[in-house]
Amino acid sequence: MTQPRHTALVQSLPASVPFVGPETQERARGAGFAARLGANESVFGPSPRAVAAMADAAKDAWMYGDPEVFELREAIASHHGVTAANVVVGEGIDGLLGYLVRLLVANGDTVVTSDGAYPTFNYHVTGFGGALHKVPYAGDHEDPRALLAKAAEVDAKLVYLANPDNPMGSWHDAATVQAMIDALPAGTVLALDEAYADTAPEGAIPPLDMTHPRVIRFRTFSKAYGLAGLRVGYALAHGDLITSFNKIRNHFGLGRVAQAGALAALADQEHLSATVARIIAARDRIGSIARQNGLVPLASATNFVTIDCGRDGAFARAVLASLVAQGLFVRMPFTPPQDRCIRVSVGTEADLDLFAAALPKALAGAADITVS
Amino acid sequence: MTQPRHTALVQSLPASVPFVGPETQERARGAGFAARLGANESVFGPSPRAVAAMADAAKDAWMYGDPEVFELREAIASHHGVTAANVVVGEGIDGLLGYLVRLLVANGDTVVTSDGAYPTFNYHVTGFGGALHKVPYAGDHEDPRALLAKAAEVDAKLVYLANPDNPMGSWHDAATVQAMIDALPAGTVLALDEAYADTAPEGAIPPLDMTHPRVIRFRTFSKAYGLAGLRVGYALAHGDLITSFNKIRNHFGLGRVAQAGALAALADQEHLSATVARIIAARDRIGSIARQNGLVPLASATNFVTIDCGRDGAFARAVLASLVAQGLFVRMPFTPPQDRCIRVSVGTEADLDLFAAALPKALAGAADITVS
Repeated sequence: MTQPRHTALVQSLPASVPFVGPETQERARGAGFAARLGANESVFGPSPRAVAAMADAAKDAWMYGDPEVFELREAIASHHGVTAANVVVGEGIDGLLGYLVRLLVANGDTVVTSDGAYPTFNYHVTGFGGALHKVPYAGDHEDPRALLAKAAEVDAKLVYLANPDNPMGSWHDAATVQAMIDALPAGTVLALDEAYADTAPEGAIPPLDMTHPRVIRFRTFSKAYGLAGLRVGYALAHGDLITSFNKIRNHFGLGRVAQAGALAALADQEHLSATVARIIAARDRIGSIARQNGLVPLASATNFVTIDCGRDGAFARAVLASLVAQGLFVRMPFTPPQDRCIRVSVGTEADLDLFAAALPKALAGAADITVS
Repeated sequence: MTQPRHTALVQSLPASVPFVGPETQERARGAGFAARLGANESVFGPSPRAVAAMADAAKDAWMYGDPEVFELREAIASHHGVTAANVVVGEGIDGLLGYLVRLLVANGDTVVTSDGAYPTFNYHVTGFGGALHKVPYAGDHEDPRALLAKAAEVDAKLVYLANPDNPMGSWHDAATVQAMIDALPAGTVLALDEAYADTAPEGAIPPLDMTHPRVIRFRTFSKAYGLAGLRVGYALAHGDLITSFNKIRNHFGLGRVAQAGALAALADQEHLSATVARIIAARDRIGSIARQNGLVPLASATNFVTIDCGRDGAFARAVLASLVAQGLFVRMPFTPPQDRCIRVSVGTEADLDLFAAALPKALAGAADITVS
């Protein structure tokens, strides 16, 4: 029988996906992971107040969530000193990035990012027919100057910067990011992914300025707030840009349980502070383990540490494969030259004990495999 | 400063949204509703096992949900006697309808629906640039023959049928729907919205046939399962069509809490059966209240009853406004001639006591207002 007539764009899209989940790997292994250190989740968990709020909201789950997400938007606005008109809440930053791309990018429109930066952004750009231009990292950092130059050259509708960066964990200071904002080409929107803002050091995040029409900043409850499994992200921008999301978003996409959990999490800043302290301590320990094994941990402003394995991608992939085979879920950058590294999310003491035990074996095994 | 360059399509979209939520109305009223009977939610609530599963999963909410939604897809497949390859789970039927439209509809592609049928489907079609063609209802029913004739006439890529129907509560028997499937124009996909399948009478739902490449059937946990606030819907179709969703969907869009809640709800078919019995009893009572007030309740296969107020749209709107002013959240069809009706979702005994008390006043007031 005749097949569905997919759009030409959809026919052109690959079947591959940005990330394979740990559960998929566990099913393939036939065994669970002993430590889950690959998706930059917060093993320290959400606020107990958020857990209680979710359990409470579960009883009311027969009611749709407020499609205006009013209370949560008000609370976010108050937290950041902006107005609710500057806030859109969505199904994680992933969902919001998809909406932003859809708002701006039609077939052939140009978009700029860094080669090796967040692949889900690229997935959305490709998915809406955008022409993606990539510039190299400058060392272990995304390169604002190169991004700006490329955006001007190709007349980009959208440019992406993550600060702090994933997968490298690096960051720019606020002045550098502000200089990028100030030098944005006319007509280019900056998607400033600040998923890791909560774990960044003082002075890394420029002040919020909701008067700029072309800067949109993404935040999330998935990282330091420990609510990756709830799927709540938000974006802060000029009211005009925020309003345009209402033309296309899934208005009932954010459920009652998710809104309640995020609201309670936001209200518990003590838990957030305590979690950030634990994240910093765990980062330090991952760094120590790396150094004890002769590797170089990169400075991190995130909830993970990227470890330079000191050789090429084949070597780092062998190290990663051994860690995975030993029951640790970890990931690594996809793109050279960043793929000389592995990326380890913060874990509990017990998680990092396992990592400390597994890494020497992984390095020894990788050295055997990759010496030819 | 220069504004963001939205796509031409986005610039053409209206700012209006398909549904205003009850919370928005409550904020405007400055008071909560006494009964929530307007969004076809299940006031009888989710399975206690689902509530417990959500509360349990809340503690684990620091972990992303499985992006393959493996366990839930397996359970859904088993429940329906299909394979997991025939199942895609998403952020409510709303979210899945958006994905389906995006898969098939590019600028100017034709889509057919009924005038007065589910507006969120239309929202997605317009949002992706589709050309929407509408055919009238045949009485209180969507009209499969007219839909087919129009689909053939305009070479539609997609045609929408809800069975049972929202907002009228009516349904076709399985043979009628099967005849529509069998007569689908080559190249037309049928989006068969079966959100209310669980409350439909025996013989209304045609057997699942996953060999047809161009029929996709939508189900949800939002209605009889009582989990509207969790946002989990699914679609059943040929594996090739299901696979194409993976090219565009938000892979991490369905959180761990949502997956756990839906899985537990599906496992509790006793709760579902008991809920359906309560829904049927409440439908009967709404019908009695309508008749006691001289109105005609339409036969319903859903969790709501559409009540013919016997006059024109202005009259029904006045009845609705009075009910709302009396603290009852209810809605009504948007489009003539269906807008001679109001639509009342099933409620508790207490909810329906309020409705029984409010309706006579609403009718008296509306008669005063609309007699000129």
